[in-house]
Amino acid sequence: MKFCSNCGAGVARRVPPGDALPRAVCDACGSIHYVNPKLVLGSIPEWQGRLLLCRRAIEPRYGYWTLPAGFMENNETTGEAAARETLEEAGARIELLGAFSMISVPYVNQVHVFYRARLQDLAFEPGVESLEVALFEEASLPWKDIAFRTVGLTLKHWFADRSRGSFGFHAEDIK
Amino acid sequence: MKFCSNCGAGVARRVPPGDALPRAVCDACGSIHYVNPKLVLGSIPEWQGRLLLCRRAIEPRYGYWTLPAGFMENNETTGEAAARETLEEAGARIELLGAFSMISVPYVNQVHVFYRARLQDLAFEPGVESLEVALFEEASLPWKDIAFRTVGLTLKHWFADRSRGSFGFHAEDIK
Repeated sequence: MKFCSNCGAGVARRVPPGDALPRAVCDACGSIHYVNPKLVLGSIPEWQGRLLLCRRAIEPRYGYWTLPAGFMENNETTGEAAARETLEEAGARIELLGAFSMISVPYVNQVHVFYRARLQDLAFEPGVESLEVALFEEASLPWKDIAFRTVGLTLKHWFADRSRGSFGFHAEDIK
Repeated sequence: MKFCSNCGAGVARRVPPGDALPRAVCDACGSIHYVNPKLVLGSIPEWQGRLLLCRRAIEPRYGYWTLPAGFMENNETTGEAAARETLEEAGARIELLGAFSMISVPYVNQVHVFYRARLQDLAFEPGVESLEVALFEEASLPWKDIAFRTVGLTLKHWFADRSRGSFGFHAEDIK
């Protein structure tokens, strides 16, 4: 950030009074510009033991497989964001079953949250950000072509929890 | 947002190509400025069945009681943010026990996440944002003077879960 988004003047980077971290501070209008981590929301859509994955049509990780997920928007809840991204990327309507994983990725300033979900029908189709969308059993899942570590971790937890007959909540970090 | 934080030119608010929502778009340098919900991280510090609350020395809700919590910063994990806020607001060192609640508050574009925690010692003291810090049993808790609904909900879930002998994870919304 080089300019104040409120008044257009140049900003300085320094620790404001009473704060502990340097911020973009505008001496012209007094604005302090905070930058915080972003939430990425997604779902784990299940249909009779198989999970729905999308093959990415965009960078980063073009051509790799992912769970439907994307940046949470203002004016929505975490569950609404997960369902919206699933509809946008996989054309899929889901019933949310519960929050399942929350994974901090501090080196990109993101927190990824995935909900367990039940696919409502088989009328899914790739959205503009997906090359294809398909259902996978555990044995046929493209483990070596998963786009992001948060997705791989979430999938591993899901199958492990299913094996032991009980789904938990998994909070962890990728550093 | 009125000006581009990258080049200082005026921004227009419109839907960029391939997007679904209006964004602050800069025609001078091509930047698109996204605004997303913020994460608030906090803890539920326990000491022998009592919980640590802070009485706020700042607005909003000056003088009301809250769990230690605040905006997550870049370059940290959710757990690190919860522990840092607890140290800053209550001077308290905690051991994190697990993620406990995640509550969307879409009308302020925030998601509040609280971790269960064990207080490591009784050497707590109010930070600059707190008037006082104290331990409360369930019966003596200032229920009518709780600062935020996310904190009240989290406290209710905590005591209910303790009563039934098992702590779960609680994802919900305040609309």
